[in-house]
Amino acid sequence: MLAEQYKAMLGGKSVIRILSEFAAKRGEEIGYENVFDYSLGNPSVETPQAFTECCIRLLQEKDPMELHGYSPSLGILSVRKRVAESLNRRFGMNYKAEHIFMASGAAGALAHAFRAVTEPGDEIITFAPYFPEYVPYVKQTGAVLKVVCADRESFQINFAAFEEMMNEKVMAVLVNTPNNPSGIVYSKETVKRLAEFLNKKEEEYGHDIFLISDEPYREITFEGTQAPYLSAFYPNTISCYSFSKSLSLPGERIGYVAVNPACRDAETIVNMCGQISRGIGHNCPPSLIQLAVAQVLEETADLSVYERNRDLLYGCLKELGFTCVKPGGTFYLFPKALEEDAKAFCEKALAYDLILVPGDTFGCPGYFRMAYCIDTEKVERSLPAIRRFVRSEYGMEHV
Amino acid sequence: MLAEQYKAMLGGKSVIRILSEFAAKRGEEIGYENVFDYSLGNPSVETPQAFTECCIRLLQEKDPMELHGYSPSLGILSVRKRVAESLNRRFGMNYKAEHIFMASGAAGALAHAFRAVTEPGDEIITFAPYFPEYVPYVKQTGAVLKVVCADRESFQINFAAFEEMMNEKVMAVLVNTPNNPSGIVYSKETVKRLAEFLNKKEEEYGHDIFLISDEPYREITFEGTQAPYLSAFYPNTISCYSFSKSLSLPGERIGYVAVNPACRDAETIVNMCGQISRGIGHNCPPSLIQLAVAQVLEETADLSVYERNRDLLYGCLKELGFTCVKPGGTFYLFPKALEEDAKAFCEKALAYDLILVPGDTFGCPGYFRMAYCIDTEKVERSLPAIRRFVRSEYGMEHV
Repeated sequence: MLAEQYKAMLGGKSVIRILSEFAAKRGEEIGYENVFDYSLGNPSVETPQAFTECCIRLLQEKDPMELHGYSPSLGILSVRKRVAESLNRRFGMNYKAEHIFMASGAAGALAHAFRAVTEPGDEIITFAPYFPEYVPYVKQTGAVLKVVCADRESFQINFAAFEEMMNEKVMAVLVNTPNNPSGIVYSKETVKRLAEFLNKKEEEYGHDIFLISDEPYREITFEGTQAPYLSAFYPNTISCYSFSKSLSLPGERIGYVAVNPACRDAETIVNMCGQISRGIGHNCPPSLIQLAVAQVLEETADLSVYERNRDLLYGCLKELGFTCVKPGGTFYLFPKALEEDAKAFCEKALAYDLILVPGDTFGCPGYFRMAYCIDTEKVERSLPAIRRFVRSEYGMEHV
Repeated sequence: MLAEQYKAMLGGKSVIRILSEFAAKRGEEIGYENVFDYSLGNPSVETPQAFTECCIRLLQEKDPMELHGYSPSLGILSVRKRVAESLNRRFGMNYKAEHIFMASGAAGALAHAFRAVTEPGDEIITFAPYFPEYVPYVKQTGAVLKVVCADRESFQINFAAFEEMMNEKVMAVLVNTPNNPSGIVYSKETVKRLAEFLNKKEEEYGHDIFLISDEPYREITFEGTQAPYLSAFYPNTISCYSFSKSLSLPGERIGYVAVNPACRDAETIVNMCGQISRGIGHNCPPSLIQLAVAQVLEETADLSVYERNRDLLYGCLKELGFTCVKPGGTFYLFPKALEEDAKAFCEKALAYDLILVPGDTFGCPGYFRMAYCIDTEKVERSLPAIRRFVRSEYGMEHV
């Protein structure tokens, strides 16, 4: 008498989880420091000291009734206000507190965004390669997730395939830039073209099409660049943010939904999020953490580590002859495997204690993901293993 | 193009919210200390110092990567283990970590329990008077909430009405003892009779019937008594707990699901909770808070305040001639109004700066709720206002 849909999910263990468990087990044999575990997208740099100090100060000084009291269902007003102000300052936006809904991480934010703008049977389009959790995230809303195949040259949007897939039932387009798993940052040109295309389709279909922008990696960009802020290009944008990566706080479940004030129903959507929460048992992110992040909104952990790691790995992979689009952000690389079957490729890598994730998981077979959110010292030590793996398994032509 | 079901919910503001907003507004005029606001069920005693100290110690001493890292989707293993051990010690149970799922408060716990054991169209039975949020909680799962009318003599279970409502489609029975809004604690006799009845019906229907026990008030009982631990009486019990009331931490969103090990599918249900999380964006409760509560599982805030408040109010109400079942726990009283229309009664009370909530909201018209989680000093000051209200509006026969 248990719910079949969830029971059925128990069988399907995620490939990433299996690989990460393999890494842990191998670690018990040879020491985890000797396993080059590129499987998991967990931040590897410490939360800034300012965040820790802020939590301690709140715990020591603030009235506990206020500190630990119920957050209003949309989030603590002063926190929402600060988030709005920070986004306005950084991205030239026009948010007020009324446009911000505090959510428990990006997963919580997306759960609300999907439910607010789709009815069961509606379609949500996303682009390969994509974060595989989008599948269960969308499935339970009753909407249908459709995936546009990748532009393998650039991992920007494959507009030809997108146009072909577009239809009247599409109520939302889900993008993730900087992107997991490709590390690619959508260019201004891509974002402009996307906005123009959606504007045209809104007019053609006579209904809104919402751009749901999943941006937990927004702050992790390289070479001093900033990722285009999507909401600045398209009014019907719902930005879903998480502090998990920028502040290295994945366990504290804190993020927000920001609805572009130019969107016709902006405040309604935020208020609807409060109603959606009641049905999914979300309520509010932890109040202590809400109050603490509000004090350090523009701080980040030392994200430069990820750029150093990218440089080391990208250099090594290019030297070995890999085809690989150079990531502009995140802590992921997504090179082409050296044989058609990326699963076989990643399987062979295990013998060299290299844990790589086949691209099949991300809707892009033939590629593999490396999550280089690990110590730089370990990245350095992994380079000889990568070289040995490629030379032994795929011969000298790749050297 | 917004989701109709959530948009439609925006109109219906909760009566409790309206009253609480009225109280805040009136407070601006005459000082909030002069408004006898019995509307909201928010804890009014501070979290124990031990909890605060524990958080600070974790922030100061624990490796931040570990402290703020992703919690496994079922909760941090060491925390689940401690919860199991504490329940075993206190209630003679047999839980292991495998039977515990950490959830973000009781709302989060219930969201998982409902989804685990019902399919759309299945029925969940609960008993009036009941917490009104059960309606949106259940609605979004696709199951149907049915309410058994109250036994107004005792606010124990109305078994005659329950038997009449019972049918094959009922997959879960939802109980809340100590009860919001009545303050009643189910007696051992009630719980035994409930277990016997459910056993009989399981056999008759040939399927499991789960008892979902919502117990955020478990620790708030009076006169040194302990509330019967439901799971000890019925194997197919899913206990949904929150630390919101016992530790005065409603904003921190921390609780758990505990599935009775004697339940055939106990571990499967816990694992299913991990899958349900993916679809509703819940993921895990904040890791700092998980680790902190695990250190103070058997501490509580100073809950004796609620018993003092009950004594003062109950004494006053009885003296004034009210019909009122004496609460055995929680911080609620649920007396019969002095006229048939409890809404009119509560409306009149506003003129005396008494904020009372009509029982209609809780599926029990003709009664009203007083949430006496306020300072004892304020309760004392409210007694003359209650006396004036009753004498002026309802005459001397009630004195």
